[in-house]
Amino acid sequence: MSDKLVYFFGNGKAEGDAKMKEILGGKGANLAEMTNVEIPVPAGFTITTEVCDLYYKNERQYPADLNKQVDENLAKLEEAMGMRLGDPENPLLVSVRSGAAASMPGMMDTVLNLGLNDEVVEGLAKKTGNPRFAKDAYRRFMQMFGDVVLGVAHHDFEHVLEEIKAKKGAKLDTDLSADDLQEVIVAYKKLVKDQTNEEFPTDPKEQLWKSVNAVFGSWNNPRAIKYRQLNDIRGLIGTAVNIQSMVYGNMGDTSGTGVCFTRNPSTGENKFYGEFLINAQGEDVVAGIRTPEPIDQLANEMPEIYKQLVAIRSKLEKHYKDMQDIEFTVQEGILYILQTRSGKRTGAAAVTTAVEMVKEGLIDKKEAVKRVDPACLDQLLHPMIDPKFKYTAAAKGLPASPGAAVGQVVFTAEEAERWDEQGKAVILVRIETSPEDIGGMHVAKGILTARGGMTSHAAVVARGMGTCCVAGCQDVKIDEKAKIAVIGGKEIKEGDVITLNGSTGEVILDKVELIEPQMSGDFKVLMEWADEFRKLKVRTNSDTPHDTTVARGFGAEGIGLCRTEHMFFEGDRIDTVREMILSDDLAGREVALKKLLPMQKSDFVGIFEAMQGFPVTIRLLDPPLHEFVPHSDKDIEKLANKLGVTKEKLKAKVDSLHEFNPMLGHRGCRLAVTYPEIYNMQVEAIFEAAVEVEKGGTKVFPEVMIPLIGDVAELKMLKDNALVVAKEVLGRHNSKLEYLIGTMIEVPRAALTADAVAKEAQFFSFGTNDLTQMTFGFSRDDAGTFLGHYVDQGILEKDPFQELDQTGVGQLVEIGVQKGRSVNPELKIGICGEHGGDPKSVEFCHRVGLNYVSCSPYRVPIARLAAAQAALKNGSA
Amino acid sequence: MSDKLVYFFGNGKAEGDAKMKEILGGKGANLAEMTNVEIPVPAGFTITTEVCDLYYKNERQYPADLNKQVDENLAKLEEAMGMRLGDPENPLLVSVRSGAAASMPGMMDTVLNLGLNDEVVEGLAKKTGNPRFAKDAYRRFMQMFGDVVLGVAHHDFEHVLEEIKAKKGAKLDTDLSADDLQEVIVAYKKLVKDQTNEEFPTDPKEQLWKSVNAVFGSWNNPRAIKYRQLNDIRGLIGTAVNIQSMVYGNMGDTSGTGVCFTRNPSTGENKFYGEFLINAQGEDVVAGIRTPEPIDQLANEMPEIYKQLVAIRSKLEKHYKDMQDIEFTVQEGILYILQTRSGKRTGAAAVTTAVEMVKEGLIDKKEAVKRVDPACLDQLLHPMIDPKFKYTAAAKGLPASPGAAVGQVVFTAEEAERWDEQGKAVILVRIETSPEDIGGMHVAKGILTARGGMTSHAAVVARGMGTCCVAGCQDVKIDEKAKIAVIGGKEIKEGDVITLNGSTGEVILDKVELIEPQMSGDFKVLMEWADEFRKLKVRTNSDTPHDTTVARGFGAEGIGLCRTEHMFFEGDRIDTVREMILSDDLAGREVALKKLLPMQKSDFVGIFEAMQGFPVTIRLLDPPLHEFVPHSDKDIEKLANKLGVTKEKLKAKVDSLHEFNPMLGHRGCRLAVTYPEIYNMQVEAIFEAAVEVEKGGTKVFPEVMIPLIGDVAELKMLKDNALVVAKEVLGRHNSKLEYLIGTMIEVPRAALTADAVAKEAQFFSFGTNDLTQMTFGFSRDDAGTFLGHYVDQGILEKDPFQELDQTGVGQLVEIGVQKGRSVNPELKIGICGEHGGDPKSVEFCHRVGLNYVSCSPYRVPIARLAAAQAALKNGSA
Repeated sequence: MSDKLVYFFGNGKAEGDAKMKEILGGKGANLAEMTNVEIPVPAGFTITTEVCDLYYKNERQYPADLNKQVDENLAKLEEAMGMRLGDPENPLLVSVRSGAAASMPGMMDTVLNLGLNDEVVEGLAKKTGNPRFAKDAYRRFMQMFGDVVLGVAHHDFEHVLEEIKAKKGAKLDTDLSADDLQEVIVAYKKLVKDQTNEEFPTDPKEQLWKSVNAVFGSWNNPRAIKYRQLNDIRGLIGTAVNIQSMVYGNMGDTSGTGVCFTRNPSTGENKFYGEFLINAQGEDVVAGIRTPEPIDQLANEMPEIYKQLVAIRSKLEKHYKDMQDIEFTVQEGILYILQTRSGKRTGAAAVTTAVEMVKEGLIDKKEAVKRVDPACLDQLLHPMIDPKFKYTAAAKGLPASPGAAVGQVVFTAEEAERWDEQGKAVILVRIETSPEDIGGMHVAKGILTARGGMTSHAAVVARGMGTCCVAGCQDVKIDEKAKIAVIGGKEIKEGDVITLNGSTGEVILDKVELIEPQMSGDFKVLMEWADEFRKLKVRTNSDTPHDTTVARGFGAEGIGLCRTEHMFFEGDRIDTVREMILSDDLAGREVALKKLLPMQKSDFVGIFEAMQGFPVTIRLLDPPLHEFVPHSDKDIEKLANKLGVTKEKLKAKVDSLHEFNPMLGHRGCRLAVTYPEIYNMQVEAIFEAAVEVEKGGTKVFPEVMIPLIGDVAELKMLKDNALVVAKEVLGRHNSKLEYLIGTMIEVPRAALTADAVAKEAQFFSFGTNDLTQMTFGFSRDDAGTFLGHYVDQGILEKDPFQELDQTGVGQLVEIGVQKGRSVNPELKIGICGEHGGDPKSVEFCHRVGLNYVSCSPYRVPIARLAAAQAALKNGSA
Repeated sequence: MSDKLVYFFGNGKAEGDAKMKEILGGKGANLAEMTNVEIPVPAGFTITTEVCDLYYKNERQYPADLNKQVDENLAKLEEAMGMRLGDPENPLLVSVRSGAAASMPGMMDTVLNLGLNDEVVEGLAKKTGNPRFAKDAYRRFMQMFGDVVLGVAHHDFEHVLEEIKAKKGAKLDTDLSADDLQEVIVAYKKLVKDQTNEEFPTDPKEQLWKSVNAVFGSWNNPRAIKYRQLNDIRGLIGTAVNIQSMVYGNMGDTSGTGVCFTRNPSTGENKFYGEFLINAQGEDVVAGIRTPEPIDQLANEMPEIYKQLVAIRSKLEKHYKDMQDIEFTVQEGILYILQTRSGKRTGAAAVTTAVEMVKEGLIDKKEAVKRVDPACLDQLLHPMIDPKFKYTAAAKGLPASPGAAVGQVVFTAEEAERWDEQGKAVILVRIETSPEDIGGMHVAKGILTARGGMTSHAAVVARGMGTCCVAGCQDVKIDEKAKIAVIGGKEIKEGDVITLNGSTGEVILDKVELIEPQMSGDFKVLMEWADEFRKLKVRTNSDTPHDTTVARGFGAEGIGLCRTEHMFFEGDRIDTVREMILSDDLAGREVALKKLLPMQKSDFVGIFEAMQGFPVTIRLLDPPLHEFVPHSDKDIEKLANKLGVTKEKLKAKVDSLHEFNPMLGHRGCRLAVTYPEIYNMQVEAIFEAAVEVEKGGTKVFPEVMIPLIGDVAELKMLKDNALVVAKEVLGRHNSKLEYLIGTMIEVPRAALTADAVAKEAQFFSFGTNDLTQMTFGFSRDDAGTFLGHYVDQGILEKDPFQELDQTGVGQLVEIGVQKGRSVNPELKIGICGEHGGDPKSVEFCHRVGLNYVSCSPYRVPIARLAAAQAALKNGSA
């Protein structure tokens, strides 16, 4: 290690630079870097992380030379700023802040306005002509120093403050006058004396060293240690301490403060953007007492400063090669940049900025693709709440399907359809949805459920449809019979207008303005660049020609999951499906299946046509049969009449389908082991449809997928059945159509025995929804009651139904891939759970060598971008 | 390979021996072996498996020399038997049978009575003085040969036979006279001619070669191939063919036949046992038309033969070192042994035989321990149906808990308790049982359920109690309201007497005689020998002092699983439990928990005292809370009154506990993440109890087990909570009690992340019931509807809830062991699922290095024996 313990920055040059993060910390290195590129940063110096390390190694003693180096640098600082610490005539005030190599926001201590005492505060008052400002700075300093350094509790200071406010009849801190604040200062001194038995220190040098001690000390406070554990921050030797001159924008009309963005953070437009206030501090901009002016106006009010700022804008963007969010202060005609960082931006701005920066030569395509957070593309694909509109949410649920929707509340799917026919926009509010609600869900602008998680029926279907959905909103109590909901304590009746924000999970009891998404040219360009880099194919989960067309528009390269059961609910089909299920024997089932065959065929025709030769993976019937039958006495009676059986007999049959844990029950391929005729009908429909579309001149590539297998013997039996049917149909039509028969890997045992399974499968598709359910033992329909708790308490970092659990479930995926390919190195492997549209999960899929991911249509662009980033990150693009 | 294609046996010596199974097949080698030790086996010869191999390799051509070798051996055979093939005066009849190195019973073809034609049959009639016998042998031969060799379907022959029987007014085959049979023979000839266009072959040599061809051909018939696949029989080159002289016991009063056992197969008593018939064939013994005489009687009727037989009995036992089941025939004063094999025996006989044979010096202890099938010990531990009693079962369900029970039918647990108080023996008949039925289950002699599998609530609880149970009996329809059941089509009312056979799953609509088990001294001796060899410890699953005492009596070395929830149902406790569950806040729950604390404590005191210092693993609360609350409107109202809340409020609370898939829901440690106070109370009760028992002078070793963890963070949180409570209690009592805190591995993710989990766990216990559920995705409460299908169709070999699925679930166990021990090589690991009492699963547990298995009290001896066999088999004892 070096003998140099302190690094200066100021006056246009710094002893450190951006590369010295390890010893200067992130903040110190950044301040040095800005100084070096001649950004006018308030001068200061950084005590290195190595000092922190030595401090702890040496029983909280500093290296002998530190005192001298700090003194030297303080002198340089005083010279640079033309002010002196503790000089009542011209006082230098400083901040003392932590700054480690990794960001640990808010975890360590800070002291601001250091250098004030009874004498200096009067000088400051005189110099600024603002006694209130000076007294307020002093009392803030005392409070912060008292808390951080002297160990007097923050709430004790607040208590004193509140007492004086009460006495003065002041509501806000700002209602206190300079004299009032003087009273506070006196009371603070007493508080400190009472609690510590010592006077509040008046010597600025003593204040400085005690603050430095406190900041180094805070490196090992319990919450900082915890934060490093939780965020897996390891190998750091300590924090640096930054001592920097304070600057103030409220020193009169030649002072001011502002925030600006180098480009428009909403649209990405390459135009200087921001706002400022004359004679104000940064907190005044935030407090909203005065309305800031747009940054252009600064050209009139402080033309010289504006010119400097425009130059800095350009310099910072070129230097950091990204859109910057800049905080500045003008103190008595001198511009200081307090901070610059990559600006937060909307999805649209992210895309436009990235694409335009490539055109401007600032960055290359790879960088542009890496730069945009895939998740933010979501904003480009759904209507959203106008960001200018301020609202208060009455309740908050899970952000189950993004976008926003305004509409009138209805409580049943039937009402939704009826109201829709009358041209009304409706929000469907349900305790939970079931497949029978599909019609109402389709017409609803938004869906709100009281129960269910991110992969509940409502959430999955809504995302598939691109319909806004807030799910599992526990603050919503619904009385479906009475057609009343209590949302966040307020009663809502059928027909009342509410707004859902599916991107945040918020429910607003009012009409809120929405804006329609713009599918800009830049977006398309970025997607094309992403496609150049990615290795993973991106397919879609789609059950209808409409969704299929939407997904193709978003660039889907096939269907990874076409669920056939949704088709079973459409229109009158459900009656035929029920007839089949409730038959007593094979003959009865076959009669009903014969009626279903042409319906299923027509579904597949539409989907094959829309996919134009891209592969279409069709999953054979998966859900337990009880999902298709009615359960209420009234509905059973109705159906009994239709089928011409007694109500009792039908009820007995329906009851016999009841299961304790349907998710682990008689479903998926297990249905077909018992009733092979069901899958046989579906396979016949698939190949009849394929042949018909092929004859019409459109290419078709069907992939038949057998769900829920746990043992190769199930697959073998059902595959053999399917082959017989497929060959029969193709033979009959003299077709040479190519196709695959494969399976989902969604039962842990299938992954564990993937080597055996791969002998019979032409492809694998990981059904990570079920795989997650079974690997965790979490029912996604029930986990809502405790999963929130788990994430809140840090037991799980994420809801594993949203982001693939790489630690546990991921092991099974890797085992499945490795064992499957050990038998068949060319095995095509994809993923069709909800995770296929989650960027981190997509990266995982890339890393373990899948061939494709499949996700809902509206997440296809996200997956394309995430796949490109995965390839770039893992060096394979 | 050798030039020798055929091996002779007869006249007291054979060319082969027992060691030549590979080329002579099992049967051929055994016949040779018997011949060599001078057992009078009917002479014959074996064509080797190598001939079969060559036959297939050479387009179904035999080696050139075979013809000659067969002729030579046939001549030797004729000489040995003093009869000639095709000689009308003194005809030799032979059997032609398959016999591979591995047993494939019934899979390949056999021809009996070969050598008959129109001429020979008359000679045979004359020689035996029994034309009916001769004609019947002929027609049987024609039918068998016609089917096997000529390809005329068996049912076509049967059809002809039935027609003639109808014409003659004969009900049974035996009602046909010699002349009638002659008609059959003529008709058979015509049938063969009609179907094959050829005459039935009359040349015995032709018959012989065609039969040999057929037997070799049957090696590769589809069912034989399938059988070898299913039974994983590999590496065999083919079947041998055995040609052996037929002998007949119905050639007059110097002939006879019988079956005998070298010891009593019911009791194991070392006394010659068996029965015989003079002038009869083996099938006459079976048919039961004549009553056979006890074997002792043979000493009077055929003293010389009896003497020979007694000598053979002794010789065979000494040779095979096991109790033998011997079939013999006396043909005209000459004794032939047709077959000897290890005799099937009852559990009692198996134990006694093994122990006595050690005393006799026939076998050593290891052999004795290996000799007894652990499963058969079950018979020694429960009342059973008197084997002498013949009955007809009306229905058959799953053999869920062994033993038998007779009693009066009741349909509710309350009735069961009421009737029991009146001194009546009851059988509790339920659609399914729930924890609320526990009282009734406890008093019932037997339990019959219509739904649920081998690990359904009824089955698990019944096995735990040692109560006979038939579960999932689909032939039982129950109307609980009407108090009527239809069992196998017959209506049964409350109070009717039925009998259950829990060892077979049979339901008998009658009173059947039961016998009480004898806990013989031999049994105890065998168990002690087993203990000398086993490495695995054997613990028990027990929730009560009573069960604990029973299990100690059976040799349990601790409790592997003490479920605390069963205690929650006892007596009035359920009210307090409900009060706790239905509280709106922590304060309310704590009030109820405080009331529960002394009750739980007293449970543990009893169990600790009964276990006398052996480790007691206590699983903290596991089931979802809704299992404890009432569900019917009436019960809810009752409880609401008790708790002083409105019915509506209570109902809403009960409804809010409903889950779609409770097995994957809010249960196990998830409850304690939400309500830590529940586990804290339980831990306090455990340690308060432990300290009390310790003070009383009895050693205590509690192991606190946290269930259902899927992530180490859950365990860490709950373990830390438990440690605080434990330390507080022990500190308060100044106790230095040792204890462990560990976890169940029952969620796949826990096994996959066992390295992380092991950092916080002091022991692992594999909960293979849940692990099986989640790894297969099978709900054990629902799998009954399809699991039978799976086993029947050969998709699964076994119900994985009965025998641990080593292929899939076993991988997770191995991963868990390996990863857990990678972090903590000394980690104590056990299993506490139902598999802990299954012998094959116990062997698996031994092999993967577990420390102990735990099973229900009545399976402890089985596990002890299985553990010893596992150690012996795997060379570690």
